[in-house]
Amino acid sequence: MSKQRINTMEELSIAIGVSRPTLSRYFQDRTLVKEKTVARIEAGLARVEYIPNFFATRLNRKSTGIIGVIIPYLNDLFFTKLLESVEVAAMEAGLTVITQCSHSDPAIEARAAETFMSMNVDGALVAPLGDHSDRAVHQRLKSRLPFVLMDSRPKTMPDVDYVGTNHAQSTGLIVEYLCRVGEPPAFLAMPRVNFNALEREAAYIAKMNELGFEPEVIGVHQVADGAFFEDHGEAVLDAEFARGRFTERSILCVNDRVAIGAVRAAARHGLTPGRAMKGGLRIAGHDDYPLCPYLSPALTTVAQNTDAIGKKAVSRILQIIRGEVTDPSPEITLFDGELKLRESA
Amino acid sequence: MSKQRINTMEELSIAIGVSRPTLSRYFQDRTLVKEKTVARIEAGLARVEYIPNFFATRLNRKSTGIIGVIIPYLNDLFFTKLLESVEVAAMEAGLTVITQCSHSDPAIEARAAETFMSMNVDGALVAPLGDHSDRAVHQRLKSRLPFVLMDSRPKTMPDVDYVGTNHAQSTGLIVEYLCRVGEPPAFLAMPRVNFNALEREAAYIAKMNELGFEPEVIGVHQVADGAFFEDHGEAVLDAEFARGRFTERSILCVNDRVAIGAVRAAARHGLTPGRAMKGGLRIAGHDDYPLCPYLSPALTTVAQNTDAIGKKAVSRILQIIRGEVTDPSPEITLFDGELKLRESA
Repeated sequence: MSKQRINTMEELSIAIGVSRPTLSRYFQDRTLVKEKTVARIEAGLARVEYIPNFFATRLNRKSTGIIGVIIPYLNDLFFTKLLESVEVAAMEAGLTVITQCSHSDPAIEARAAETFMSMNVDGALVAPLGDHSDRAVHQRLKSRLPFVLMDSRPKTMPDVDYVGTNHAQSTGLIVEYLCRVGEPPAFLAMPRVNFNALEREAAYIAKMNELGFEPEVIGVHQVADGAFFEDHGEAVLDAEFARGRFTERSILCVNDRVAIGAVRAAARHGLTPGRAMKGGLRIAGHDDYPLCPYLSPALTTVAQNTDAIGKKAVSRILQIIRGEVTDPSPEITLFDGELKLRESA
Repeated sequence: MSKQRINTMEELSIAIGVSRPTLSRYFQDRTLVKEKTVARIEAGLARVEYIPNFFATRLNRKSTGIIGVIIPYLNDLFFTKLLESVEVAAMEAGLTVITQCSHSDPAIEARAAETFMSMNVDGALVAPLGDHSDRAVHQRLKSRLPFVLMDSRPKTMPDVDYVGTNHAQSTGLIVEYLCRVGEPPAFLAMPRVNFNALEREAAYIAKMNELGFEPEVIGVHQVADGAFFEDHGEAVLDAEFARGRFTERSILCVNDRVAIGAVRAAARHGLTPGRAMKGGLRIAGHDDYPLCPYLSPALTTVAQNTDAIGKKAVSRILQIIRGEVTDPSPEITLFDGELKLRESA
């Protein structure tokens, strides 16, 4: 026997014998309704087929119960890990997460921000595109909604709540490790559109200077159209190896996706990083991309604590939403990286 | 000078001198309004700061302009590629995509379905969890909304529109290739919770029988708690190699993530798949996971056409939404796989 299908709150009120205003309060926040009535409403709901309209129930509420999340790319396991951590933390807090991906396009990032403003989401968590982002879009979001940046932040937005990795610490840690057990590393960088890449490069240079070694940065220019991440790492080292350079060096890559390309270039030239006990090619990365342990050789890297970053971003936005923030200055939370010693260095 | 901030349609009507019902029609569908009036409204909107409420504008519309997408996991580049293809196609059609991830949990999948029903989304595209999915949830979605399954489908839902890969063709193709250039392969399967894994296993067995070879399937049981994909492939082959088995065999893995683990197991045992000209260990996969070209050795596999699957799923759901479907029988669209010959086999 199929249940009676109910389409409106009026029909529901008649079908289960509870007044329309009481039902409204129940759907807004069940703690506003007496326990006995809650039990009666829930028994009634079990007897009928009724789905409250998502939009109607959120139209006049102070809170929509939605957190909007913007990530720059989808095809990157670092961002999917971060997003997973955000979703799990938000679910535990009873919130719905709506994610929009910028697909590397500032116009799409701007449209996502407009969507969240028009939804009146309770707050926005944004991992920005980097140099490509339109700063005005972030400023506008921040002026309208509780707003927290994750993963990377424009130097031009120092007044914003931010949760990310302490790149000075994380990059310093792996530079120190590489110097301690072998040759001081060169740094394989990225074309300069990425704030984190620049922060890590600066951290590398600072730590090398501190330890009394000469920094050497390669790969700052784009070698081929559309050659980012793995392709970039492979192309830069392929060219160097072909000229007989860097084949016995230590190379710290700006991130693991670049390092995956670097390891591939090594394989093409018959080199196995990390094999020699002393001296010889070594390659290390940054992030602890989920595939690092499965590479051959498994990649030595420094892990970003994506789980802590996601959880903290959610708890911070909840604090702002709930009006629990007393200090008006922005809160910057930086998590330390952790060495993951594997085979490649 | 900052613009006048407008919060409601009433305020907007007064500020720009256009009647409230006309504004409503404009926000619903601007083609319902005279061109001259559209120009007047748009000039007015440019003078004020107004964001139409996402929920209010969708509350009484026939169409919400939203497509709901459910994917089973986030940390899988196959699904992020598929999602990217869906999002790009949907954006081109002027739709907003709202994605919910099931995080491998049927209760979360069911909640995502409820959310989409309560949003009255125009249609739902679902990549199901597999055996874990609650069939009743899919049936309920299908009874309420235009509904298309992607990527994999339960045998128990033959009456549903579906877009995926022709696994008989794709798996047959790589089995044939492996048999043509070397030893007939064994099949490294997955614990039996995944419809696609089962379809590929059946396709492997059928093709081996057709070619007159004895099929041999390994890895159908879970070897360790939580050991899926890469961990599963590595654990199964690590155990076999330790007993001196399969070290000179051809191994077709059920998917590339399992193959990545298999290649890793080989490296741990000092084996390099694909190196020997004739004989010796070979490893191949299925899917063309984005990292295959960067592995050492680069992974030979058969590519799923994720781009075509995503585009077709969007165009099919649009057909249903627009009432352009005349044939009531379900449309099953299967795309062929394409061989990607690299180094590992």
